[in-house]
Amino acid sequence: MLPAAVASLLALASLAAAADEGMWTFDSPPLAAIQQQHGVALSARWLQQLQKAAVNFGGASASFVSSQGLVLTNHHVARGCIARLSTPERDLDGHGFLARTQAEELRCPGTVLKVLQSSDDVSDSVRLATSAAADDDATRNQSRKRVIAKLERDCQQNTRLHCQVVALYGGARYALYRYKEWDDVRLVFAPDAQAANFGGDDDNFVYPRFALDFALARVYENGKPAKPSGVLKLASKPLAEGDLVFVAGHPGSTDRLRTQAQLRFARDVDYPRTLARLEAQQALLHAYAKRSPEAARQAADAIAGVENRLKAKRGEYAALRDPEVMARKEAEEARLRAAWTQRNLPGDPWALVEASVARHAERFDELTATEYTYGSLLSLAGLLVDLAQQRPLPEDQRLAAWRDSELVQNERKLRAKAPFYPELETVRLAWALGEAKKVLGDSHPFVTTALGSDTPEAAAQRLVRGTQLADPAVRESLMRGGQAAIEASTDPMIVLARTLAPQRLALAHFKEEALDTPAEKAAAMIGQARYALGGANVPPDATGTLRLSYGTVKGYSERGIRTPWKTTWSGLLDRADSFDDRMPFTLSTPVATARAKLNPRTALNFVSTADIIGGNSGSPVVNAKGELVGLIFDGNLASLGGRYLYRDESARAVAVHIDAILQALETVYGAPQLAKEIRGGR
Amino acid sequence: MLPAAVASLLALASLAAAADEGMWTFDSPPLAAIQQQHGVALSARWLQQLQKAAVNFGGASASFVSSQGLVLTNHHVARGCIARLSTPERDLDGHGFLARTQAEELRCPGTVLKVLQSSDDVSDSVRLATSAAADDDATRNQSRKRVIAKLERDCQQNTRLHCQVVALYGGARYALYRYKEWDDVRLVFAPDAQAANFGGDDDNFVYPRFALDFALARVYENGKPAKPSGVLKLASKPLAEGDLVFVAGHPGSTDRLRTQAQLRFARDVDYPRTLARLEAQQALLHAYAKRSPEAARQAADAIAGVENRLKAKRGEYAALRDPEVMARKEAEEARLRAAWTQRNLPGDPWALVEASVARHAERFDELTATEYTYGSLLSLAGLLVDLAQQRPLPEDQRLAAWRDSELVQNERKLRAKAPFYPELETVRLAWALGEAKKVLGDSHPFVTTALGSDTPEAAAQRLVRGTQLADPAVRESLMRGGQAAIEASTDPMIVLARTLAPQRLALAHFKEEALDTPAEKAAAMIGQARYALGGANVPPDATGTLRLSYGTVKGYSERGIRTPWKTTWSGLLDRADSFDDRMPFTLSTPVATARAKLNPRTALNFVSTADIIGGNSGSPVVNAKGELVGLIFDGNLASLGGRYLYRDESARAVAVHIDAILQALETVYGAPQLAKEIRGGR
Repeated sequence: MLPAAVASLLALASLAAAADEGMWTFDSPPLAAIQQQHGVALSARWLQQLQKAAVNFGGASASFVSSQGLVLTNHHVARGCIARLSTPERDLDGHGFLARTQAEELRCPGTVLKVLQSSDDVSDSVRLATSAAADDDATRNQSRKRVIAKLERDCQQNTRLHCQVVALYGGARYALYRYKEWDDVRLVFAPDAQAANFGGDDDNFVYPRFALDFALARVYENGKPAKPSGVLKLASKPLAEGDLVFVAGHPGSTDRLRTQAQLRFARDVDYPRTLARLEAQQALLHAYAKRSPEAARQAADAIAGVENRLKAKRGEYAALRDPEVMARKEAEEARLRAAWTQRNLPGDPWALVEASVARHAERFDELTATEYTYGSLLSLAGLLVDLAQQRPLPEDQRLAAWRDSELVQNERKLRAKAPFYPELETVRLAWALGEAKKVLGDSHPFVTTALGSDTPEAAAQRLVRGTQLADPAVRESLMRGGQAAIEASTDPMIVLARTLAPQRLALAHFKEEALDTPAEKAAAMIGQARYALGGANVPPDATGTLRLSYGTVKGYSERGIRTPWKTTWSGLLDRADSFDDRMPFTLSTPVATARAKLNPRTALNFVSTADIIGGNSGSPVVNAKGELVGLIFDGNLASLGGRYLYRDESARAVAVHIDAILQALETVYGAPQLAKEIRGGR
Repeated sequence: MLPAAVASLLALASLAAAADEGMWTFDSPPLAAIQQQHGVALSARWLQQLQKAAVNFGGASASFVSSQGLVLTNHHVARGCIARLSTPERDLDGHGFLARTQAEELRCPGTVLKVLQSSDDVSDSVRLATSAAADDDATRNQSRKRVIAKLERDCQQNTRLHCQVVALYGGARYALYRYKEWDDVRLVFAPDAQAANFGGDDDNFVYPRFALDFALARVYENGKPAKPSGVLKLASKPLAEGDLVFVAGHPGSTDRLRTQAQLRFARDVDYPRTLARLEAQQALLHAYAKRSPEAARQAADAIAGVENRLKAKRGEYAALRDPEVMARKEAEEARLRAAWTQRNLPGDPWALVEASVARHAERFDELTATEYTYGSLLSLAGLLVDLAQQRPLPEDQRLAAWRDSELVQNERKLRAKAPFYPELETVRLAWALGEAKKVLGDSHPFVTTALGSDTPEAAAQRLVRGTQLADPAVRESLMRGGQAAIEASTDPMIVLARTLAPQRLALAHFKEEALDTPAEKAAAMIGQARYALGGANVPPDATGTLRLSYGTVKGYSERGIRTPWKTTWSGLLDRADSFDDRMPFTLSTPVATARAKLNPRTALNFVSTADIIGGNSGSPVVNAKGELVGLIFDGNLASLGGRYLYRDESARAVAVHIDAILQALETVYGAPQLAKEIRGGR
């Protein structure tokens, strides 16, 4: 037996992050680990420079790459702006865009960029306010919200910056973040979508990869290019395999503190059933597409969407089914639980989770079958009914899914102008209703309400034929009309959604109270324990705020296939030619035109072991000197398991190589002045 | 319930080959199925032309591609000849070879080519002789051998051709094959090994692929180029995705009639344990390689060998673990068993197999642990001892592994000049001895004999230090000296192998009598039943003789990754550049030199769904007109499952595209005259 003190030390050590794991906050990066593992010492100035150059681009990532406010991000991050600036006559997405002078730069409507200026630990202030409050969760939550709001307000008034309190480690630490914001953001350059998104959904999460997924914008202040206080310099020596690189960006969320109960539930219930449903939808859509070329065209988007979700879900599922992953998660949890017991910490978050997972399992089919029944138009009907009901309530009495921030998103969904194909709609709705009938049984109130005496096919036909919700103007007027308009509507989809509203509401309350709340509470407890035990040696789960990741530029071997660290222009040409130039592998017209002038050996994309996830799109990749070497735009299939566990065997972050960006600007798109600006000239 | 007649018809129908399955004999190709599935009618003349052009190249495949006796095969098929013609001063393997005139062509020592001229069904003759014999297996076998030998001898005398009786469907059909043979085969052209074998073991079984795996030889008759009666013409139109193609070659063996008992044993016992052992060996070798650069050099070949075996085994294992594969095999067996019962066929081959598999499972570890203990030198000692003991016996009293044909191979092994590294040898032997101790226990006679009172490490050291078997001359003199020399030897490895001989012999007898014989008998029964029920609608298992396969030129999608039907020169350049031109992805010097002159869009390799397996290397691929479009050289990873079940979802045969061969000859290797000869000019 080990003496207790030693065992406790071991427990602490083994809680520390593995290899190059972690999306670290800039105020406590793992300097010692980086120095020890990679022999590189980062200075405060180095960190400060990178932080000031790292841009939050509407939730995703970007960076300043010139002293004239030039911002580099992904084409797919800037795509919202590009789409909004496009007109039927001027397709900036399809053809790309180049402002030859600053005067030609186009302002992106609604785009706001921000840069983290500084941060302070405010854990004590938050904790003080919370512990002074009464001993029930609700009161504590309210006090916490109040003190956070006050901290943010005071900061805003004092600094004129945008201030935000961020909860880390499930609330073990609170940090006050101060951002500088810019709302005058102008599009400078975008390649054509086919070059940016070469391979389309087929190549999403796939590596080797050949995409020019970059775009340039410029930030203006008082009508003049902004002078950012942090600007990334171009790398002074070529990137090589084995190099240490850093990524600064805004990873959205990770689930690395999920308990065994949750992981098993995900592995044994959620993923298999979700995948089966997606596969059934895929088969349904392919069968529909076979009816005619027009049917194929109608179904193409939905097929791409389903297949992309399948790919992503299968990637995550593969990690959960890997015995090694589960063994590591199990060992991690066992260590944490042992330490918890040893320190006599109060409560049992694992039991809390287990109970909530058990309740989730009981009603999983009901939750999903009723949710999925809302295929496009019927789901919009549900949103309209719920919006009318929830909007009038004070924010704290609404369902979590209808808090202000979510409300805006739902309104956006209702206003989106999606094409509507009655036959496709009918087929999908009939399938969803039939699925509900099969899963829930004939006598479930949802089924009796939705179908009456009809078959799923007949009900779907009736609903789709009778509805006018395909017309955005009809939806808009129902949105404006509120509860009264909803009550008065005779649209069959609104009528059905209205009749189902009490059931839907009850289920939503169940989800929030029995599933989400205990899970969040447990996650906070576990997160806090983990921080208490591991301290800043353990990175917090991602929270959509600025993080520093690091890793090694490195190829990999997977299932007997060796994959190189980079790709080249030759590889792009090969992938286009080997698919006979068919979509989505058609060579973009500008690239095809410049083909003979390209240097075939120039690196196009490359991979590293840096720990990233959704939200990191557009992140700059810098070398040990802090110089720009690339631009994150995706992860490979194995990296999808990173939601649950970081691994560096074959999981990789995929980036556009800076050389490809420069060569594209100079040789393909006739924009040498922008390449020069990035190189540091004016 | 279905009426019996209908059920029986259904059973028959479902025994027929799936999609493009099958390695068919040229005398009963599935003409109707090909016409129905692909709309192509093959004429007798078409088949005859292809058969006469299809060459057996020392067990592998090749084809005549000019009227001047020019033969096209893989570099790796011709490699034996290339190696034998190389000298330290003239490395034809490393640098390649080009005969600028016919006078410069170099005769391959020992290489014999043959072409199937005609065949007859001799089933009745064999069956008559067999059924006339007494009712025990041994007598029947002897009669069969006698009649087969007579058929071959008579044929040989009458036709002056080389004649061979081939058992198909486990002996349900016998065919007399008549071959024309040539022993004057001269090397005409070989690319450098790095171009032919680009990617080395890393890219073996991998696609996308970029190998120029071809070579040219010429057949001479009476000192002049032979005039073959079948010559493949060059394709008159470019190959395209979706095209139907045919492959004529010599697939070695398939195991598609394995029973459920055998497949489960393979899946649950054989593959997992074999893979675990290979993985342990891999780890051992990597640990050794880390000792020093010299150790890494010594271990490199062994590591490549183990990792290649791992890759192949894992590919086969993946098929066995695929529930869909097992379900299909199970359904196939159920149908066959039902038909068997319905027709009251005698005996129960499945029970026979089950009993033998059960006995195999009992002694699996013993068989493998003792076999594996014979790491290189000790295994040579075993061969020497057994050779001396078995060679003097009449052939029919020897173990199957020592029949004449095998004896030659074992002698070749004993004469091979492999490098010998005492430390590496010791490490491997110690591991193998330790493994035997672990698996068999301390008191197993093998362990007590091999170790005595030593540890595995000490025993290995003692054996390796004391032996002189690393010297080929020592082995040669022991081979020549026979039993007396073995008895007199004091070499510790010979002494140990001698002491272990009775155990080894007993185990070999057990394997032959309890495992192999019943399995072969059952396979013959099942094969015959399958033929009796399915007739020529079911292709026979591969037997190393000439077969026709067909399939569609087609890319595939696997685990979310889209893979194109072909690769291009650009892809080769990308793979070399993206690995920074490191081995095994270094661009071959001739290709690097010609880089600027290559047409980057020229197709290099391509895939089809044709049903192939080891032995098909070098097979010509022809289009529906019978014109040459490519050259088979490998299968992808998914195709490895083809040993047990043909599937066309992602399993593919990999071929060199004829355009790459012509461009390589014209542009890279300065041999336009050979390209011209293939094009049909002189």
